[in-house]
Amino acid sequence: MTHDAILAAAERIAPFVRRTPVLKLEHCAGFPIQNDFFLKLECLQVSGSFKVRGALNRLKTLDANVTRHGLVAASGGNHGLATAYVAKQAGLSATVFLPTNASPLKEQKLRQWGADVRYAGAVWDEAHEAAQIFAAERGAFYMHPFADSAIVAGQGTVAVELLEQVPDADLYIVAIGGGGLITGMSAAIKAVNPDVRIIGVEPTGSPTLHASFAAGHVVRLPQVTTRVATMACGRTDESIYEAARRTVDEIVLIEDEHMIQAAQLLWFEFGIAADLSGAASLAALMAGAVKPEPGQRIVGLVCGAGVDGVSN
Amino acid sequence: MTHDAILAAAERIAPFVRRTPVLKLEHCAGFPIQNDFFLKLECLQVSGSFKVRGALNRLKTLDANVTRHGLVAASGGNHGLATAYVAKQAGLSATVFLPTNASPLKEQKLRQWGADVRYAGAVWDEAHEAAQIFAAERGAFYMHPFADSAIVAGQGTVAVELLEQVPDADLYIVAIGGGGLITGMSAAIKAVNPDVRIIGVEPTGSPTLHASFAAGHVVRLPQVTTRVATMACGRTDESIYEAARRTVDEIVLIEDEHMIQAAQLLWFEFGIAADLSGAASLAALMAGAVKPEPGQRIVGLVCGAGVDGVSN
Repeated sequence: MTHDAILAAAERIAPFVRRTPVLKLEHCAGFPIQNDFFLKLECLQVSGSFKVRGALNRLKTLDANVTRHGLVAASGGNHGLATAYVAKQAGLSATVFLPTNASPLKEQKLRQWGADVRYAGAVWDEAHEAAQIFAAERGAFYMHPFADSAIVAGQGTVAVELLEQVPDADLYIVAIGGGGLITGMSAAIKAVNPDVRIIGVEPTGSPTLHASFAAGHVVRLPQVTTRVATMACGRTDESIYEAARRTVDEIVLIEDEHMIQAAQLLWFEFGIAADLSGAASLAALMAGAVKPEPGQRIVGLVCGAGVDGVSN
Repeated sequence: MTHDAILAAAERIAPFVRRTPVLKLEHCAGFPIQNDFFLKLECLQVSGSFKVRGALNRLKTLDANVTRHGLVAASGGNHGLATAYVAKQAGLSATVFLPTNASPLKEQKLRQWGADVRYAGAVWDEAHEAAQIFAAERGAFYMHPFADSAIVAGQGTVAVELLEQVPDADLYIVAIGGGGLITGMSAAIKAVNPDVRIIGVEPTGSPTLHASFAAGHVVRLPQVTTRVATMACGRTDESIYEAARRTVDEIVLIEDEHMIQAAQLLWFEFGIAADLSGAASLAALMAGAVKPEPGQRIVGLVCGAGVDGVSN
């Protein structure tokens, strides 16, 4: 993944995405945040998460012939929503395979954007297999959520904006599902400032890259037990693994409960309606899994929006 | 209300509030927004709404003797939350009187910030009377939500930031409860650019300023039927009325249902968890109550956060 590919993606998708704002996490009565800590609010992004960046960059670099039978995705939620959204905008059909642990409210949202929603398997990896078979049968294009350089370059565009919005950050804390976001972001960040430290966060119930780092090669987890569907992934891809090896400094593990607590804090003190992966960077800090040095300026991102935030 | 008083308030409260971001409402699949439309996200503000600006400016300009027996407020939610928050931060007690139409989840939040919560009356005006009596009995300080120049100056600081964030706006659309926000904002805006148009929005079930404008003097509404507690107010104050007369160009009325639809759109397309008053400016546009000219740049604000946005 080159810096140039990410800059090209940023230019390509700019007319179709929002430049999401960054909020400094200050004045928090419920938890003492000692460092300057900035969150990029990708929960306010088109389609509800950063995933639309990758999906758009993928779609915009495909020949129309390849997509004329529609798009197919397998997703715990956000990548599926992004696929449904870009398909709708492009006048294409979208079929989204969900594992049974996906949020029912994300399913509703998918249907509102016209996607054909199908359930397959208990975890993402099983939905992924079913989706690939379906796409091959129909001649539709399978949008892989991370093992695709155009997707990774698209996700990396978050970092292009962050480098402008918080130019003097010392430390990034990034949630990991399959690893597309963190490898895209790291490629952009380290090309500009190799000294920035990048820490990935995985749930103890889905330590995909953590286990692969420990083994020295890509491993398939014997089981995935996290309830955070957007961070559940039994096996990443070799290209992601190699890129993460080069650019990610450390991977820490946290409990689902930490993310629930952090999401509640983000909601209660900041009015941010984050999904659980969106609370992972703050959760890593609150859990003590990341211990920043005094004065370090930290950046995280709220990957996606939660499922409810409408009532009076 | 002078511009200088608002600038002084902005400087006074700056260390304790967040400079909330502005989001451009673009790429909306569910409603065609023809104009450039910017929303300031005060739902991300300390205490959950802009109300903390007024409460802080009020508290910081009071002698400690006046507040030693605590703070009292009557509020459909946001002003009460702001009072509870600033009291907690200052080590003071807070008693908050709610009308029975207030949101139960705002009550929970009040209790989490240590407020003594009491219910009094069916609408705000009745809670207001009970709170004033209580404050007089206890020697506590009654924080009026709008009929107080320090409160109005504090709310006006929203506009100081907006004038920097969207310097070339043509039209502001602002929700009205008692009228403190719109009169504070208008004083700041028109001091800098008298040609900007400012439109207030009231629910048809609580047309407080609309009815007073029509009558040519402050009137008490025979009944308040809106379900939007933060915009329910049976009677405003003479000073607010006079200020609004001078600086507010027009007041439009919308149905509660319009705000519900707008809040759902803000959530679905933008990930913004707004309370219903926070959706009023968009609702006025969606309902056709405000018909901007082509090319006009519009500014609104999301006054406060909704009540739920945590689940995965």
